[in-house]
Amino acid sequence: MITGKNYIGNTKSAKGNRTYQTFNPKLNLENEQLFTEATNLEIDEAVALASEAFKSFRTTPGLKKAAFLNAIADEILALDDTLITQYCTETGLPVGRAIGERGRTVGQLRAFAELVTEGSWVEASIDTAIPNRKPLPKSDIRKMLIPLGPVVVFGASNFPLAYSTAGGDTAAALAAGCPVIVKSHPMHAGTGELVAAAVVKAAEKTGMPNGVFSNINSSGIDIGKRLVQHPGVKAVGFTGSIRGGRALYDLAAQREEPIPVFAEMGSVNPVILLPKALENKGTDWAKIYAGSITVGTGQFCTNPGLLLGVKSKALDNFVKTLSTEILKLEPTCMLHPYIHNSFESNKQRATNQRGLEVVAKYDSEVAINHARQMVATVDGSIFLDNNTLHQEVFGPYSLVVQCENMEELIAIVSKLEGQLTGTVLSEGNEAANFTKLISTLQNRVGRIIYNGVPTGVEVCPSMVHGGPYPSSTDSRFTAVGVNSIKRWVRPFSYQDWPNELLPEALKNENPLGISRLVNNKQSKAKI
Amino acid sequence: MITGKNYIGNTKSAKGNRTYQTFNPKLNLENEQLFTEATNLEIDEAVALASEAFKSFRTTPGLKKAAFLNAIADEILALDDTLITQYCTETGLPVGRAIGERGRTVGQLRAFAELVTEGSWVEASIDTAIPNRKPLPKSDIRKMLIPLGPVVVFGASNFPLAYSTAGGDTAAALAAGCPVIVKSHPMHAGTGELVAAAVVKAAEKTGMPNGVFSNINSSGIDIGKRLVQHPGVKAVGFTGSIRGGRALYDLAAQREEPIPVFAEMGSVNPVILLPKALENKGTDWAKIYAGSITVGTGQFCTNPGLLLGVKSKALDNFVKTLSTEILKLEPTCMLHPYIHNSFESNKQRATNQRGLEVVAKYDSEVAINHARQMVATVDGSIFLDNNTLHQEVFGPYSLVVQCENMEELIAIVSKLEGQLTGTVLSEGNEAANFTKLISTLQNRVGRIIYNGVPTGVEVCPSMVHGGPYPSSTDSRFTAVGVNSIKRWVRPFSYQDWPNELLPEALKNENPLGISRLVNNKQSKAKI
Repeated sequence: MITGKNYIGNTKSAKGNRTYQTFNPKLNLENEQLFTEATNLEIDEAVALASEAFKSFRTTPGLKKAAFLNAIADEILALDDTLITQYCTETGLPVGRAIGERGRTVGQLRAFAELVTEGSWVEASIDTAIPNRKPLPKSDIRKMLIPLGPVVVFGASNFPLAYSTAGGDTAAALAAGCPVIVKSHPMHAGTGELVAAAVVKAAEKTGMPNGVFSNINSSGIDIGKRLVQHPGVKAVGFTGSIRGGRALYDLAAQREEPIPVFAEMGSVNPVILLPKALENKGTDWAKIYAGSITVGTGQFCTNPGLLLGVKSKALDNFVKTLSTEILKLEPTCMLHPYIHNSFESNKQRATNQRGLEVVAKYDSEVAINHARQMVATVDGSIFLDNNTLHQEVFGPYSLVVQCENMEELIAIVSKLEGQLTGTVLSEGNEAANFTKLISTLQNRVGRIIYNGVPTGVEVCPSMVHGGPYPSSTDSRFTAVGVNSIKRWVRPFSYQDWPNELLPEALKNENPLGISRLVNNKQSKAKI
Repeated sequence: MITGKNYIGNTKSAKGNRTYQTFNPKLNLENEQLFTEATNLEIDEAVALASEAFKSFRTTPGLKKAAFLNAIADEILALDDTLITQYCTETGLPVGRAIGERGRTVGQLRAFAELVTEGSWVEASIDTAIPNRKPLPKSDIRKMLIPLGPVVVFGASNFPLAYSTAGGDTAAALAAGCPVIVKSHPMHAGTGELVAAAVVKAAEKTGMPNGVFSNINSSGIDIGKRLVQHPGVKAVGFTGSIRGGRALYDLAAQREEPIPVFAEMGSVNPVILLPKALENKGTDWAKIYAGSITVGTGQFCTNPGLLLGVKSKALDNFVKTLSTEILKLEPTCMLHPYIHNSFESNKQRATNQRGLEVVAKYDSEVAINHARQMVATVDGSIFLDNNTLHQEVFGPYSLVVQCENMEELIAIVSKLEGQLTGTVLSEGNEAANFTKLISTLQNRVGRIIYNGVPTGVEVCPSMVHGGPYPSSTDSRFTAVGVNSIKRWVRPFSYQDWPNELLPEALKNENPLGISRLVNNKQSKAKI
């Protein structure tokens, strides 16, 4: 079923002669299938088709887009075990995770289908004319959100389904009315092709224009660069490393016509252990965090890589319990030898830093590409002075920063790079006594969690997955939840436009029955 | 009353030794007052104060921010004739325009005051917990918009009040909870100081933190660069030339922590003359456009600099009438000799292009710094091949592009740079026959106008003032209307946060009585 070809619009294509393979990290073997990298001509053709498709897709009614999105979900489910097996073969992740992530992916697609079926997401706004206003008559002005144009989506290594081919970025862009060109992640190109086939099948079944979706194979960086620099591309979505995301951001900013890049990048997700929480519940939290640090082999962007507390007996006990508990857990497989090697060298780099003490280190024999979890501690003053210690160690690793006092802890938080999340562990109402700390934390993160773990990102309208740089390239948007559609749209005004020529969302009759801001009042009424 | 000093927070300061003067273009004389450029230390102090002020201002309740905004409006009005006289002295613009622009400025401030008083603008969204959900319990997640941090606003040359010191960008940023540092426009530094004094007085009267506002004098580009590169600055607003806006955008993108720059830049605002409109109403439109091209001495960003029609007798007649009518109008004064000289050289550059024919040129003697209006024509094929002709000629100038046929016209529109506005002049329902043209136009602009003129930007929720690059650096935002607040805010999530520690907007009781999205239903109810 997997051909190793690109999808240039609905057509399978493999005109190039550079091939690559994916890797089974559990078997430590390359998978058999050869994938053919797209050629420059194929890339240009995909963009040309997307630009052409945009002409009709941009105004495709919500119900039709919803049918398309739901059909993608159906076709993904129809792949059944074939998809799950391929996913596991290319990631080393367990079947349960694959099934869970598929559920999330399908759920996202259906959530966007619901959003565009309901229709109010376009934020229709109408200010009716006042012809006899003095000194000047007032025009009729109406506004709604419209799509930007073709979007390039870079698949993520750690979410082969939910943040790759038909993942959140793609679902949001298609819902907005933007054709999507996926730069398939080379680590799971087979999973990508299966899902791409599902998207293409869905597009054909629901009558979408050819070019509404393409899937581009690529194992290096040149193809991604070409896509981001292509004049026909109007926005970029990326999930991955800071280095990768920043490189794309820079390329996009340097274009003759700069385009928005929403890159969701690294984060160490600081967790603050307040004194009473440590005192009364330290053991419980240590057990919970042993799980959160290692879940998914620590390969989540919300992995808690930084735990901060004020030095105390209770903090010592927490560190001890965390160390004991985390070493009880069986190491699990990482996504790829490359990622496993990075994990090992990042741990090494961290432990080479002055003042860092390793308190838990899984030392027994492990299966190939399995990650040996580690916990280390460091003094607050040392952490404050050494930016290397702030950097993400992608994998099951966490650093406990032991501060002299709350002032030092606040100083550390205030100097942290931007983060996806920040967590506060608090007992009773002690958090109420730390308003300065919490306010400082809020200023550095996109989401703040009370007495919980940062891993596990709920997909709902109130979720923000994003945050100050470098956790994302633009903190004004979220990558998760239906509001992520706002990355791919712009507001557009019609002035004195004849009712019959207006889009449905803005017509007097309100044929879509959506909620609109009419002369500053929200309403579903006709005008 | 004018001292020539900077406002570093609430303190007048002039530690530097570089001074400059503003210019009275009508008298062709420098105005007497010396303005002292800010020093690097003063800039750093302004940013430090703004960062400190942000700590409290970011959570200042809507009612208090509204009091501040309304007080600014009151203090501006209290300046009375002093402000109007200073405005006219520094711009050459007539008293009526000054009064009108003051009205708009005050209106914007009050509109934002109303917005934050009502409070629903924060887009509060609540998804309540489902503790017994399977397989995993669902957390309580709540979201609202929060301010980015200190914003630098670059005053515009052509709107000394409405898009400068306390103009739209500043009003939106303060409403959002962002301290503002204004880089005063050197052409109207006195007007700027008067308004800055009004803002500072209002800040003191309403108990705002010192540093919530600063006003920085600068005649060159170095101070602006330093501000945009300053790590304490979190966003930038700019209105002006493409060259200036792009330079700031590039600086911001190259920072270690890139920050958003919303620059509203040049635009030639294409107007499409459909055949029947030319045939039946060509004379009327010619008269109206003679006015629109020259209003405000052609110094509006929505000035119609490009008129497009298919060759016909009717188009010839339109050009003839437009030429006659525009030459009947008295030339008016430009903002500054520098702008007047640019206008003259830009006209010269345009007329040096092959195939361009000047059809109207005001040739009589004019007063110093007054702009001689001009209209030229060119064939579509020549325009298509020569990008120089696409460039804005800032002032009372317009180019009529005479196309062979509608296909050529559509090709031209599809290749236009991004524009703030596009206008269609249509008779009866003829526009209905030109859907491809209109769809192509829509893709290049931020606002589309039917049977009107692009000049005159209504301030209302449905207005979009922005558009594809280079009309703005980010088409996803508007510079006019209350939605412009979205440039300076980011969504933020609270997970399982205790009700008593939540901000008012997200508390169960809904103490602000705002409209919120609660479990996917918009509601003002308590939870």
